[in-house]
Amino acid sequence: MKRSKKSTPLITLLTDFGLQDEYVGVMKGVIAGISPTTRVVDISHHVDAQDIVQAAFILAAAFPYFPAGTIHVAVVDPGVGGERRILAARCGDHFFVAPDNGLLERVLEDWQAAELVAVTESRYFLKRISHTFHGRDIFSPVAAHLAEGLPLANLGPSVALSTLVSGVIPRCRFLSKSRIEGRVVAVDHFGTLMTNIDKTGIDRLASRMAAPLLSVEVNDKPIGGLVTAYDQVATHAPLAIFGSRGLLEISVNCGNAQQALKAERGDKVGVTASVPKPPAR
Amino acid sequence: MKRSKKSTPLITLLTDFGLQDEYVGVMKGVIAGISPTTRVVDISHHVDAQDIVQAAFILAAAFPYFPAGTIHVAVVDPGVGGERRILAARCGDHFFVAPDNGLLERVLEDWQAAELVAVTESRYFLKRISHTFHGRDIFSPVAAHLAEGLPLANLGPSVALSTLVSGVIPRCRFLSKSRIEGRVVAVDHFGTLMTNIDKTGIDRLASRMAAPLLSVEVNDKPIGGLVTAYDQVATHAPLAIFGSRGLLEISVNCGNAQQALKAERGDKVGVTASVPKPPAR
Amino acid sequence: MKRSKKSTPLITLLTDFGLQDEYVGVMKGVIAGISPTTRVVDISHHVDAQDIVQAAFILAAAFPYFPAGTIHVAVVDPGVGGERRILAARCGDHFFVAPDNGLLERVLEDWQAAELVAVTESRYFLKRISHTFHGRDIFSPVAAHLAEGLPLANLGPSVALSTLVSGVIPRCRFLSKSRIEGRVVAVDHFGTLMTNIDKTGIDRLASRMAAPLLSVEVNDKPIGGLVTAYDQVATHAPLAIFGSRGLLEISVNCGNAQQALKAERGDKVGVTASVPKPPAR
Repeated sequence: MKRSKKSTPLITLLTDFGLQDEYVGVMKGVIAGISPTTRVVDISHHVDAQDIVQAAFILAAAFPYFPAGTIHVAVVDPGVGGERRILAARCGDHFFVAPDNGLLERVLEDWQAAELVAVTESRYFLKRISHTFHGRDIFSPVAAHLAEGLPLANLGPSVALSTLVSGVIPRCRFLSKSRIEGRVVAVDHFGTLMTNIDKTGIDRLASRMAAPLLSVEVNDKPIGGLVTAYDQVATHAPLAIFGSRGLLEISVNCGNAQQALKAERGDKVGVTASVPKPPAR
Repeated sequence: MKRSKKSTPLITLLTDFGLQDEYVGVMKGVIAGISPTTRVVDISHHVDAQDIVQAAFILAAAFPYFPAGTIHVAVVDPGVGGERRILAARCGDHFFVAPDNGLLERVLEDWQAAELVAVTESRYFLKRISHTFHGRDIFSPVAAHLAEGLPLANLGPSVALSTLVSGVIPRCRFLSKSRIEGRVVAVDHFGTLMTNIDKTGIDRLASRMAAPLLSVEVNDKPIGGLVTAYDQVATHAPLAIFGSRGLLEISVNCGNAQQALKAERGDKVGVTASVPKPPAR
Repeated sequence: MKRSKKSTPLITLLTDFGLQDEYVGVMKGVIAGISPTTRVVDISHHVDAQDIVQAAFILAAAFPYFPAGTIHVAVVDPGVGGERRILAARCGDHFFVAPDNGLLERVLEDWQAAELVAVTESRYFLKRISHTFHGRDIFSPVAAHLAEGLPLANLGPSVALSTLVSGVIPRCRFLSKSRIEGRVVAVDHFGTLMTNIDKTGIDRLASRMAAPLLSVEVNDKPIGGLVTAYDQVATHAPLAIFGSRGLLEISVNCGNAQQALKAERGDKVGVTASVPKPPAR
């Protein structure tokens, strides 16, 4: 991909560092020292500590909305200081820097990586590498060098997609021709249950019978059918809707689904297609 | 208003989205894609979910401190996906994009809108509009186009101020010539009770008698008179002061008024003027 | 220090204001009005209310990672509206604006201030100064003027280092030749106990005997020796490590030290050096 000489791309940050300590600010300081005109956008720093699954879904949902050339840095990294690899990838017009722990799994599923390297060239790191904060010492300076135009291949050797840590991110699956099951992969700020059930799956389910009735359950408790607007159900009633990520979400109209349904990250969500009963005559 | 061709204005964001999910970051990505040099400043994303009143006071307090030309995007939007209008307005040198739900009521009270339109021209939206996230799909791209110099009138038809949703924001009122009553409209980070009682009201109250004694109560519990510095009361004593918003605030010196007074958003705050008793002889 | 005419430096913000209210956004609006091209980086706004000690350690840990010329604004200011001085300092290539309450103590310990003034020239403040929000009315405009190239000396008279409020920040100390004691000065987002015990102190301790055994205790409860990676102890075991600040930290491998050790800010941390017992034969 060609990048303009006139402007530097954006860098996004996604971490589980929180905003209480100096960690995120320091990453931005390191980036500014290497690439003074690059702007940094926070995707989130409130991923639950070490929750790679939650981060993988956030990253996949967010990155397509950024301009071509953006460099996405994701640091949810329980293996920091150990032997895990750090990856740098280009998928289409976007760049990614993340640990090899499943964090990129959702992105790479949909976007074949055109380039994929292991980040090993320590000349692009800070001089002193701590044992506990590679976000500052490795991820930030590497991203800043990419923003300055460093070719991905200069960061380290190519690695094959097949060698990556995989199978970390739960996928939805068909239990039968008429039933799909997935998981709550995150609970958002509004108490909405974010699932891993995508539109393609539901469309396949629905295509197998004429005018099927779709019913959704959370932890085997039925919560009704699919709607396209909150106000299609009564106030405080639960509902299932395709949300802003393009994935199935469980909400409560003017309420909090997590509290109302006593549901949590990891809980089971099922969708069953059935032939509607003919109306009684 | 003429805008310089050399620099793009600021965009500010005020939402109830929280910072836990990708929502705010994605809005910034959309803005950067349309207006690459525009900088975005967060006013707050921690408005209580769907609390239009709290947001209206924050917006009115914050916007005058930004440079001329700034575009203020406020998305506290319980009606998302329904029939509510989206407004774009110019008040003096500032631009606003917000749902028509009372959020702009405080701003428009003090600053006659020179231009006011309903945002309907979908060519300035993202191509796919979700049912749940107009902050990303409509508000952000519209603000970014304004930042690029799009005239407000291009966004949709003019609307009359009189047609806006109104009466949402509680106002303080005179119960008698000697008493004004208002509400706690927010509790801030320090536990300070932010009210809707302004200096003009208090000045009117005080002007009606010679050298009046002003006494302040929260939920009918007296907390003393008005001070001009925290240390005019004892440590851990409550106090009433005109705060940084120019509105009456109830604090506790070196403490937390919310906890100490067991007060909440919506609670009653009264100020009574009386003639001081002559000292006993 | 010479500053380039082509670009303005960064301003960093460190406060206890939280992100719930308009306070931080308004500071950025004020800065943008005076210095339109200056970028602002948040170090943290979640310092515990009025916790000068926590802020002093964050500031000292963060600032060296920012580019030369950065202006660091720190507002943890229990004395706002009272008689406390506001300081502006240059230490090496970095500028600081902070109340004279100990907040700069850690920075000034290690970096002799080349210039140190009391900020008194109100022409660089906002026109109306509130009693409660000097972050907006004084700190932000002063920092923005520095970013625009105003010489430090224009802000007010020089002050001697010896006149500053001092002794606020707890230091670690040697109780004997074989024991050093410090404090938990903050608990980070991951529950890690951040101490004030630095590597120099530990090195001095260790240098006094041949191949000493170092044992660490929190509140007199032993938690083992020093490690250099989390995975050198069992999962859920506590550990002591030199962290990203270059100070001793107490963590729990894959866990939360604050919860596991029931420790808090202010708790005692000790390190004792002893001669290892010869192995029993």
